[in-house]
Amino acid sequence: MTLKHLSDAAAALQISRRGLLFGAAAGTAGAAMLPAAGFAATPETDTIDLSQRHPFYGKGPQAGIMTPPQRYVFFMTFDLTTQDRQALQVLLARWSAAIAQLMKGETIGQVEPDRAEAVGLDTAEALELEPAGLTVTVGLGPNVFSDALGLAAHRPALLRPLVDLPSDALKPDLTGGDLSLQACADDPQVAYHAIRDLARIAKVTGTAATRWTVMGFGRASAGKGQATPRNLMGFKDGTRNIVQPADFDRHVWVQDGPDWQRHGTYQVVRKVQMHIENWDTDRVSDQNAVFGRHKLSGAPLTGTKEFDTPDFAKTATDGSPVIQDTAHIRLAAHENNEGVKILRRGFNYTDGINQFGFLDAGLLFLSYQNDPAHFERLQARLGASDALNEYISHIGSGIFFVPPAPTEGSYIGEAMFA
Amino acid sequence: MTLKHLSDAAAALQISRRGLLFGAAAGTAGAAMLPAAGFAATPETDTIDLSQRHPFYGKGPQAGIMTPPQRYVFFMTFDLTTQDRQALQVLLARWSAAIAQLMKGETIGQVEPDRAEAVGLDTAEALELEPAGLTVTVGLGPNVFSDALGLAAHRPALLRPLVDLPSDALKPDLTGGDLSLQACADDPQVAYHAIRDLARIAKVTGTAATRWTVMGFGRASAGKGQATPRNLMGFKDGTRNIVQPADFDRHVWVQDGPDWQRHGTYQVVRKVQMHIENWDTDRVSDQNAVFGRHKLSGAPLTGTKEFDTPDFAKTATDGSPVIQDTAHIRLAAHENNEGVKILRRGFNYTDGINQFGFLDAGLLFLSYQNDPAHFERLQARLGASDALNEYISHIGSGIFFVPPAPTEGSYIGEAMFA
Repeated sequence: MTLKHLSDAAAALQISRRGLLFGAAAGTAGAAMLPAAGFAATPETDTIDLSQRHPFYGKGPQAGIMTPPQRYVFFMTFDLTTQDRQALQVLLARWSAAIAQLMKGETIGQVEPDRAEAVGLDTAEALELEPAGLTVTVGLGPNVFSDALGLAAHRPALLRPLVDLPSDALKPDLTGGDLSLQACADDPQVAYHAIRDLARIAKVTGTAATRWTVMGFGRASAGKGQATPRNLMGFKDGTRNIVQPADFDRHVWVQDGPDWQRHGTYQVVRKVQMHIENWDTDRVSDQNAVFGRHKLSGAPLTGTKEFDTPDFAKTATDGSPVIQDTAHIRLAAHENNEGVKILRRGFNYTDGINQFGFLDAGLLFLSYQNDPAHFERLQARLGASDALNEYISHIGSGIFFVPPAPTEGSYIGEAMFA
Repeated sequence: MTLKHLSDAAAALQISRRGLLFGAAAGTAGAAMLPAAGFAATPETDTIDLSQRHPFYGKGPQAGIMTPPQRYVFFMTFDLTTQDRQALQVLLARWSAAIAQLMKGETIGQVEPDRAEAVGLDTAEALELEPAGLTVTVGLGPNVFSDALGLAAHRPALLRPLVDLPSDALKPDLTGGDLSLQACADDPQVAYHAIRDLARIAKVTGTAATRWTVMGFGRASAGKGQATPRNLMGFKDGTRNIVQPADFDRHVWVQDGPDWQRHGTYQVVRKVQMHIENWDTDRVSDQNAVFGRHKLSGAPLTGTKEFDTPDFAKTATDGSPVIQDTAHIRLAAHENNEGVKILRRGFNYTDGINQFGFLDAGLLFLSYQNDPAHFERLQARLGASDALNEYISHIGSGIFFVPPAPTEGSYIGEAMFA
């Protein structure tokens, strides 16, 4: 047997992945796919600068929401194991002090204590590593604002469990939580170290226990200056995401209520399993119809370039809509939802191989909005009609209020305890 | 409540992680911890160049063994689902052609085929991404060399299942496999795409099905020009690893047998669970005794710098050995094992949270050696006596022969079918 026929077939398809977008060989296609004004193209050589660091303290929102998505996330939720108000206060204070250290690329305490009988305060696996753009974002679940904790009066006006949504296939052990941590960084070891050492503080103080977690990778959400990343269905994800500060003010940040809630936001998290092996057996023309976009270019089916505005009214010669009624982008578009937009900050995940031998993977969907009903509105429509539903299952869910950043000397949510 | 006492405590410990090694603030400690001659210090700003690419074809070993460890790995094993010799031949040929494409940063076929009824040949999630230093290394398990496949006569002389080892706690669904793929890259989406599309080829050809997989991160193995990375116990891992080409020739590459096996090697893989929450409750002085090294500097307990040679004969004033009899580095040292060395290429992994609410994490241990008995020798001693055994479990295992790289126009293992 010779490999020649295989090699020839391969040679005929030798397209550099980046050449598709930026290379001379791509010809007009390259130019056609450059992002629209306001977005910079990714440079020819992609490097990651791990020295970047973000401030934790400040006036305004917590980091990790407007921050351009880093390459990795560890998201973890916790159950409170005490109803002692002061214990929660101490945990939030210790978490805040520790997060400030971690985001600077510092240890949270001694690695080799002077006293021989002491345990290390920092678990040490991030020593010698850069800050790697780490952000840790803290969320408070509905149960935090309880009578038992004396916090019922401080409940953010719109915080409540999410309503049941069509196509929910939630697993109890991937759902809920009283506290959430979203640790994002360009180095997974830095993000994991942060989550691990914060979980350790929760446990040793007897305040909270781990509930569920997802590790994500990729940059499945577009930010300014980034080319749009792809999800594990191979489609660009985030082309129409929120990027303008004015849109953050209008759609993401809480603008009313008590002072300590302003520039807060509501975090919705969904673990969305994708049946990627089934997806891979679908013809691409159907995949395009499901999304309403071209897989290769990301252009809407009514356009030729990724950032072309979809024309939802356009019909084919037979009178049928070019972007079908059940297309994902039609159902999710702000034009078709009274202007509702949410900030998506998604990451790809894989859990390896499932019990049937199939690749187990999907999307860790994190969204931020100033009203959880905005997410519910979109997901109610998508869950009922989206052509994508054949290929996805929402298996995990949570909702949290994310207070604004603390100023130096303060801590997350301090005003609640005043 | 005020945060002042917490802030003060934190301020007293504000040591930049990198400052510990390289900063002026570290004073003599910084100088003391610079790697020994032959290793370059990591530059002050750590960047990852994703444009790097490695050749697949060549004379000599496959890439991904001597290649300096990339930041991510997806390791996957497969069971043959046919005993048709030609089917295996086609799979190895198609895998080889695809891997060559992938390592160049190219697609393995059309994403949007011209024919409307066609499925995509490439799943597309790595479009626009750089090659990211991808290497895919193919291994052949003991069952490949069977009478049914007509390959029994080609079995590499030392290939056989590993012997049972003390402290084995192997789970059947994390053990074995007829084929292995080790995909390493500096971008996890590139590595995952490679594994996914190669698994898809195995499935659609009806030749092999996924068996078990581990995703790893970090650089838990030292290479030339890299500072030594840390495992999730917080210790440097790989200080005494093989780096010199002469040592590769002596310890890693097969030097005899048929031509097609020369510059091959035996791959041993172990999924080593680390009970990190238990570990974190141990005092650091004991952790140091367990490893025989200082956690912070990585220096042996008999020295002051990471690359100091351990002095296994040295005793304390009371006559006891400074590096205890059950210390990990004593049991693993080539000085104490008739010169045996193996190449370790380890990565950290996490599986999230286990059913008891504990962080589930560990080390994906990959080693390469020209005789599997070398691994067994070391692990037999470690499994019986290592003080570390209290904190680890070997839960997964596999062994594979890794043939040399094919030359262009050929494919992995082609000579077996001649």
